[in-house]
Amino acid sequence: MRADGVFITLEGADGCGKSTQAELIAPALEVAGREVVRLREPGGTPISEKIRAILLDPANAEMCDQCELMLYEASRAQLTREVIEPALARGAVVLCDRYYDSTYAYQAGGRGLSDELVRRANALGSCGRTPDRTLVFDLDPATAYARATAGGADRMEAEGLAFQERVRAAYLRLAQEEPARVRVVDASGEKSAVLARALDALADLVDVGRP
Amino acid sequence: MRADGVFITLEGADGCGKSTQAELIAPALEVAGREVVRLREPGGTPISEKIRAILLDPANAEMCDQCELMLYEASRAQLTREVIEPALARGAVVLCDRYYDSTYAYQAGGRGLSDELVRRANALGSCGRTPDRTLVFDLDPATAYARATAGGADRMEAEGLAFQERVRAAYLRLAQEEPARVRVVDASGEKSAVLARALDALADLVDVGRP
Repeated sequence: MRADGVFITLEGADGCGKSTQAELIAPALEVAGREVVRLREPGGTPISEKIRAILLDPANAEMCDQCELMLYEASRAQLTREVIEPALARGAVVLCDRYYDSTYAYQAGGRGLSDELVRRANALGSCGRTPDRTLVFDLDPATAYARATAGGADRMEAEGLAFQERVRAAYLRLAQEEPARVRVVDASGEKSAVLARALDALADLVDVGRP
Repeated sequence: MRADGVFITLEGADGCGKSTQAELIAPALEVAGREVVRLREPGGTPISEKIRAILLDPANAEMCDQCELMLYEASRAQLTREVIEPALARGAVVLCDRYYDSTYAYQAGGRGLSDELVRRANALGSCGRTPDRTLVFDLDPATAYARATAGGADRMEAEGLAFQERVRAAYLRLAQEEPARVRVVDASGEKSAVLARALDALADLVDVGRP
């Protein structure tokens, strides 16, 4: 019998190490025999990548909050329809680096847009889809921020440390509100230790090969 | 005393002649002593023009309906905050070639997205702003379509005549729902005759210089 598709999203402030963890989690799922589709938001389709380029270009500093919000949702809608939904339908594990919880954490938490506004926008952009499990990689904001800005800051990272602290607080609120879906993973220490914690937080949902 | 800002939007199916009318209406308002800010959607700011390029590029045929919807709203939010709101605040007349009624007519009417979905998206993208007056230039769909496609069809116009007929029906519904704001202007006949009808439909709201 074919396995059901599983939709996993990886979240956290810039510099939390989630992209590194995505590289480690994927093979652990593949070892267990699953097709893994790795995605990154914003992006993941030709159209979504064009939208990503607008979002991340420091030249677009005049962008208003609501434009930014709608661009994230546009990119997300395309990714959801063109890639995520077909992958889940064929039984794959979708491992997505950021999804709508990022929009909540950054736009409502970081920028202070109304919770209600962002939640409504998220419902539109995700085409009503909800991740089966969301891992929030949690790290001391000062450490995460230092990591994220070490190679030069993009437009989002240029917002500063106080912004990242509000982002973190928003993620922790989500984990309190939706404990079955959203799990906080301690992202401090060695990569292998963080990976072990991440796999623990997935083990009830999908078979994982232990390295 | 400074005049209050007035927000006028021009609507209609492709080929209805509204862009030509915008060129004629603007000087008629300027003759009456008003600052007129002419805008075109999607577009009108550097960021909105980048979004427009994605929307109108035939290479992006894979674009899903909800992505398209969110892109229009993103472009609109930026235009509203960066240009429309400041212009209205200083007392200008804003003359905008398409605004959220286009999204309703094309996405809900033309593509068949749910009315409720499109209305919620419009509320987000317009940042809650409503035009003071909306002129719908109405023309027999076959005539409008032949005009619109005479020089080669862009992605939207390539949808065909049946699509344009649904667009027209949606505009006429809006005019029934909001008769104080949305006025249907017969767009058949000579440009000068259409202009006279358009100015008649604005005369209660703003002084117009008759040519």
